[in-house]
Amino acid sequence: MNIIIERAALLRSLGHVQSVVERRNTIPILSNVLLRASDGELSLAATDMDLEIVETVPATVTRSGGTTAPAHTLYDIVRKLPDGSQVELDIGGPNGGGDGTILTLRAGRSQFKLSCLPVDDFPQLSGGDLPHRFDLTAGDLRALVDRTRFAISTEETRYYLNGIYLHAAKAKAGGAELPVLRAVATDGHRLARVEMPLPEGAAGIPGVIVPRKTVNEIRKLIDEAADRIELSLSDNKIRFAFDSVVVTSKLIDGTFPDYERVIPVGNDKTMEVDAKLFAAAVDRVATISTEKSRAVKLSLTRGTLTLSATSPEAGSATEELEVNYQEGPLEIGFNSRYLLDITQQIEGEGARFSLADAASPTIVRDVADATALYVLMPMRV
Amino acid sequence: MNIIIERAALLRSLGHVQSVVERRNTIPILSNVLLRASDGELSLAATDMDLEIVETVPATVTRSGGTTAPAHTLYDIVRKLPDGSQVELDIGGPNGGGDGTILTLRAGRSQFKLSCLPVDDFPQLSGGDLPHRFDLTAGDLRALVDRTRFAISTEETRYYLNGIYLHAAKAKAGGAELPVLRAVATDGHRLARVEMPLPEGAAGIPGVIVPRKTVNEIRKLIDEAADRIELSLSDNKIRFAFDSVVVTSKLIDGTFPDYERVIPVGNDKTMEVDAKLFAAAVDRVATISTEKSRAVKLSLTRGTLTLSATSPEAGSATEELEVNYQEGPLEIGFNSRYLLDITQQIEGEGARFSLADAASPTIVRDVADATALYVLMPMRV
Repeated sequence: MNIIIERAALLRSLGHVQSVVERRNTIPILSNVLLRASDGELSLAATDMDLEIVETVPATVTRSGGTTAPAHTLYDIVRKLPDGSQVELDIGGPNGGGDGTILTLRAGRSQFKLSCLPVDDFPQLSGGDLPHRFDLTAGDLRALVDRTRFAISTEETRYYLNGIYLHAAKAKAGGAELPVLRAVATDGHRLARVEMPLPEGAAGIPGVIVPRKTVNEIRKLIDEAADRIELSLSDNKIRFAFDSVVVTSKLIDGTFPDYERVIPVGNDKTMEVDAKLFAAAVDRVATISTEKSRAVKLSLTRGTLTLSATSPEAGSATEELEVNYQEGPLEIGFNSRYLLDITQQIEGEGARFSLADAASPTIVRDVADATALYVLMPMRV
Repeated sequence: MNIIIERAALLRSLGHVQSVVERRNTIPILSNVLLRASDGELSLAATDMDLEIVETVPATVTRSGGTTAPAHTLYDIVRKLPDGSQVELDIGGPNGGGDGTILTLRAGRSQFKLSCLPVDDFPQLSGGDLPHRFDLTAGDLRALVDRTRFAISTEETRYYLNGIYLHAAKAKAGGAELPVLRAVATDGHRLARVEMPLPEGAAGIPGVIVPRKTVNEIRKLIDEAADRIELSLSDNKIRFAFDSVVVTSKLIDGTFPDYERVIPVGNDKTMEVDAKLFAAAVDRVATISTEKSRAVKLSLTRGTLTLSATSPEAGSATEELEVNYQEGPLEIGFNSRYLLDITQQIEGEGARFSLADAASPTIVRDVADATALYVLMPMRV
């Protein structure tokens, strides 16, 4: 293999693929990026055996071929090269001289020789058919991810909650039933559910749990993505095809709990509050709450919300907000961190809380956007 | 005490003083900031028993008095208040009602009550006379700090190297001797020495070792400082008086080694190199050097410097630079981190290396600035 490639293009792609490579690997080849050049293109691939990313960039290929080289080292080198450099990557081998175990990188008056491992040793996520195929806009995929991923559980024992549950469902809207694509995440303390009209081609998809690491890698790629992203999936695998980047991931092999049971239906007390003022006030008052519980108390009376927190060591905090609330007095406690996670996802002006009592789950919604729904378990305060 | 103060002014001052307060304190009052109000001014003070910072800000004082309140909590609250808030601080006590153990902070519709400790329990750095007094410009003090502090030792057993040695000395300049103020720091692997004409009033100062934490706090204040900073010192204490902030610190009670002995005088091989190109090349080549040694080899031949690094796992790197070097071939190794620390302090275009051989300390200077001198011990490579 011998190619010449622009530093900026190589850096961008290496940035994507090295992100998938774990810092510590017991299997040496998992630290490497697979490089393959032919027909004016360099393809780069990295995997952690659960998640695979493949990217293709234009390059001047003077000799086709491939190798695998240490991903983080290669990324660091290219990052430190001067902007505008032309980078030559050369690996010997049968047709190029040398034994193919050393990758030579040249740029300006710099030369690096990196130990390589054979292409054939590089693990491939076994192929398999991905029969379901549909498109999402970058904006829709971003919304699905951002409004749910904060609620993903980090408890490893509840592995079936360590991802976003993506599935087709029927949403009830005034007597009618609309087919929707739904993303749901929960850690048992809060639940986030986002839905959108079911895209063409997604009608028969199985319910799948997309692992957190995959979600986070996808999220990084969305901001640079073209307008549409193609998703394809089977029972045990999902693929996100961006412009020149394709991410394929195993799915979590587990059963997502029946989340509908958790969403209360009889919450008849409504409070509407300015989401930004509410978030700022929660953040201030929580300064006093103990590091461990982070509890904040919401005390509601007609037209007024009083936020408060106390800690045996630090003291106490209270703050009043004007709210739209027409019911009798109600006191309820929440983890302030969870309140902030949710209100930060509310893009409209108002947040609407639907409450029952101090011991029951509360529903939070964006007044201006019916697609997202959040359920929050109360805390005793 | 009852005062009203602008949030921005309070935040700025709390930012300075809370920085001195350690996160974990076994003595509770050391977590607190001392607040005292009278005559249209609020004074804030914090200490860790070795270092004390006192700042004065204008405030509307409706009732004089004082207290001590948790520094980090108070800072966090004020930071989270809306920009433009007016903040009321109120503490009861003999003339104000209450028992003086609670500080009430009000701003808009927020109210915080913080546990306080008595003013009398707050430790004072014992007074003592500071007989020596001189001024430095902010620029000069910044140069003294920036060009030496990277070389301060972090080895606690060599406590006498855990700071910057500030003293008056005579610099030899073409036969004449000029009185200078010098700052020196070393960790045994490298040494940094900066000097400037001795300021008026500094003639009889004792040599003092300013602890690293004090150096770092001072450095943060310099960028906001007025043009001149007044230093006063005795054998065991130093004070930096900025506009409205005064930092007083104990000195390290130890003997700084005779650093002059370390500075070689017979290095007759000179290499001049573009400092920025050199630093970038060292950084690139060091990508390959092992995490532990960080060694980079410099191979000099007439007009050319070749930087190289090898690692048993990663591979090798080389880079060539044009340099002004007229001597015979020389190979010498350095810790790349140390080379970068020094070259980052060189503001001029060129760095001048004075070398003897592969086993002897090397001198590095800014070609355009004779005030700073760096000594670097070589490594075997």
